[in-house]
Amino acid sequence: MSELKMDLIDNENKKQKPDADKIAFGKHYSDHMFIMDYSTDKGWYDPRIVPYEPITLDPAAMIFHYGQTVFEGLKAYRTTTDKILLFRPEQNFKRLNLSSDRLSIPAIDEELALTYLKKLIEVEKDWVPQAEGNSLYIRPFIIATEPNLSLAPSETYQFMIILSPVGSYYKEGIHPVRIHVEDEYTRAVRGGTGKAKTAGNYAAAYKAQERATKEGYSQVLWLDGVEKKYIEEVGSMNVFFKINGEIVTPELNGSILEGITRMSIIELLKDWGIPITERKISLEELYEAYDQDKLEEAFGTGTAAVISPVGELNWGDRNMVINNREIGEMSKKLYDTLTGIQTGKVEDLYNWTVEVK
Amino acid sequence: MSELKMDLIDNENKKQKPDADKIAFGKHYSDHMFIMDYSTDKGWYDPRIVPYEPITLDPAAMIFHYGQTVFEGLKAYRTTTDKILLFRPEQNFKRLNLSSDRLSIPAIDEELALTYLKKLIEVEKDWVPQAEGNSLYIRPFIIATEPNLSLAPSETYQFMIILSPVGSYYKEGIHPVRIHVEDEYTRAVRGGTGKAKTAGNYAAAYKAQERATKEGYSQVLWLDGVEKKYIEEVGSMNVFFKINGEIVTPELNGSILEGITRMSIIELLKDWGIPITERKISLEELYEAYDQDKLEEAFGTGTAAVISPVGELNWGDRNMVINNREIGEMSKKLYDTLTGIQTGKVEDLYNWTVEVK
Ligand SMILES: Cc1ncc(COP(=O)(O)O)c(C=O)c1O
Ligand SMILES: Cc1ncc(COP(=O)(O)O)c(C=O)c1O
Repeated sequence: MSELKMDLIDNENKKQKPDADKIAFGKHYSDHMFIMDYSTDKGWYDPRIVPYEPITLDPAAMIFHYGQTVFEGLKAYRTTTDKILLFRPEQNFKRLNLSSDRLSIPAIDEELALTYLKKLIEVEKDWVPQAEGNSLYIRPFIIATEPNLSLAPSETYQFMIILSPVGSYYKEGIHPVRIHVEDEYTRAVRGGTGKAKTAGNYAAAYKAQERATKEGYSQVLWLDGVEKKYIEEVGSMNVFFKINGEIVTPELNGSILEGITRMSIIELLKDWGIPITERKISLEELYEAYDQDKLEEAFGTGTAAVISPVGELNWGDRNMVINNREIGEMSKKLYDTLTGIQTGKVEDLYNWTVEVK
Repeated sequence: MSELKMDLIDNENKKQKPDADKIAFGKHYSDHMFIMDYSTDKGWYDPRIVPYEPITLDPAAMIFHYGQTVFEGLKAYRTTTDKILLFRPEQNFKRLNLSSDRLSIPAIDEELALTYLKKLIEVEKDWVPQAEGNSLYIRPFIIATEPNLSLAPSETYQFMIILSPVGSYYKEGIHPVRIHVEDEYTRAVRGGTGKAKTAGNYAAAYKAQERATKEGYSQVLWLDGVEKKYIEEVGSMNVFFKINGEIVTPELNGSILEGITRMSIIELLKDWGIPITERKISLEELYEAYDQDKLEEAFGTGTAAVISPVGELNWGDRNMVINNREIGEMSKKLYDTLTGIQTGKVEDLYNWTVEVK
C-alpha cells in the first residue's frame, strides 16, 4: 500500500467541542466520518471522509430486519508531548473481520482500514481531548444496506468510522464496582455469536442489566449458556481473578469476546513472570476460594475502563466482598502500566501503540 | 378507540406494480408506509402514512450498534370475491410487544396498531395481488433511533410498517424439502432471545444456512442450545411430526419462536379431535421412530410457506426419507384448510380473519 486513494469533503460548519469536564459518553461526535461502500460486483469501493451527517437508508435495508452488522471500539489518546496514539488498532480490524466472518459479511483490507482510520484522525486531530483521562473513542462499524426482506446475506454494505470524544471513566478515582451474577438471562452460547462484536448481542443484555441496576449493582456477571456454571464475562468486559497468588481468566470458548485488553494483560503478566492461566472457572470454585480467603482480587477489562476492579460479587444470597472493596495491587499495576503505555507515559516495550502523525 | 387521528401524505409518484408471475420475495415495496415515533417524554406519537421513501438516521443511532429492534411478518390476501383479509393480525401485534419486552423496547397499543395497519392497507389496496397464491407481505418493525453509543435502551424509537407484494411460495406445486440437521451453530438458547422476533437472531443463522445450501439442503433443523439434543425449529419455521398417528411439536421453551401458524395448527388439530402433543422431541427419538417405520410425516410451519413438508432429513451419515418425499395427508389437509381460511375459500369457523374494508 503506497498511495492512498480517498476523497475528502471538508465540513465547513465545525461544531463546538464539549468542555473537558462535561463530556458524556457517546453523545458528542466529531465533524467528519469515514465511509466506504461494498457491492458484490465492485467489492469495497469509494472510501471517503465526509462531514458527519445522517445516513439515508431504504426502510427495507437489511440492517433493520436481520441484524447483519458488526462493530469495533478503540481509543485515540493525546500524550503530554502532544502526540496522538492508538492502542493496538490492527487487532481491532482483525477482530472486525472475525466478527464479519461469523455474520457472513465480506472482509475488509485490515491494513487499508488502519490507513483510513489514521487519515480520519489526522483530519480530526483537534477532537482528541487534552485533559488527563479523556480520549477520542473510535467506532468502526459495518451495516447491511440492501433493501430486501429475504433471509440471506446482503449484497451491499457500508463500512463507517465515527469518532466521539469521551471523558475519563474514573472522574472520582477508581472505585471497585458491585457485580450481580446473572443466572436467568444468557448473553451467549456455544455455536452462537458471543465471540463476534455484533449488535444483537448487546441489546439482548439490557434486561439483565436493568435488573442489576435496579438492585444497586453496576454490572452483571455472565455465566456460560450451556451449564450456567462457568464464568464468562462481566458486563461488556472480560474478567480476571487473583486466587492464591495466581491470575486466572476464563478460557476463550467461542462465546466469550476476545478482548484486546484481555490479550494485552495476559502478555504483560507473562512478561512479568506472573502465573496466568486461561481455563474454565466455575462460580462454585470462586466462592470456595473466597470462603478459604484465597480470592485476592477480581477485575473486569475492556477498552472503556481498561481495568474495573470488582469490590463485591452477589449471587443470590451469597455475597462476597473482595479485597475490602479496594483496588488490588495487581489491578493497580496493570491499570497504571496499560494506561501509561496508551498515553505515552510508560515506555511501550511491546510496540502496541501506533502514532497518528 | 373511536376516532382515528393520523396524517396521510399521498404519494403522487405511484410505482408500477410487478407482474403477478415475476414477483421476487421482499424486493418490491408499495407506494406508502406507516410511521410513528416514540420518545420517553411523549410516548408513541405522530402516527402517519407517508410515501415509501428512505429514512434518515444519525450514524450513531442505536439500531446500528446494539441491535435494539423487533419485527413482525404477516400477510394480506385477496379473496375471489375481492375482499381483503388479514390472518390473526392481533396475534402479530401481541407478539411484537412480547419481543419488545425482551429487547427493552416500549410497548405499542396493539389495538391502535391494528387500526393503523388496516388504514395503510386500505390506502394500498391495489397492492394486494389478485393472482392465486400471491399476497401482500406486511412487515411491521421498531428500531432504536437515539444517537448514543452508551450501552442502554434508546430513548427514541420509530415504529414502521412496510408492504411488499409476494408471489406464491409454491409456484410449481408443493414439493417437500431436504433439511440438514445443524449441530454446530446455535440459533437460540434458554435465557437468550430465541422467543423474540429480533434482528440479531436472523443474521446469526446465515452461516448454518450457507453450509446447508452448499450441501444441497434447503433449510437447517435447529437443535436446543443446551444439550444439542432436542429439536427446536426448521429454518425460520416451527416444526411438526406425525409419529404413529399422533402429531407432536416441540414445546415452547423460551428459545423457540411462538409461531402463529403453529398456534393455529394446534387449534385446528384439537378441533378435529386429532391427538396433538407439545413436548420435548429428541433427534434420537425421531430417528428411532423412523427406523421403526413410525415417522409418517414432517412439516415446517410459518407465514411464508404456511406448511412446508419435509421430504428428507439429514444428520451426518444418518439420512431419512420421509413419506417417500411426498406431501403427507395431514400436511395437505392442514395446508388446504389454513390457506382456504386465509383466502376466504374455506369458512372461517374460528374468527381468525379480519377484513380490511
Ligand atoms: C462483550 C465484550 N466483552 C469484552 C470486551 C472487552 O474487549 P476490549 O478489551 O477489546 O475492549 C468488549 C468490548 O469492549 C465487549 O463488548
Ligand atoms: C424463527 C421463526 N420461527 C418460526 C416462525 C413462524 O412463525 P409464524 O407462523 O408466526 O409466521 C417464524 C416467523 O415467520 C420465525 O421467524
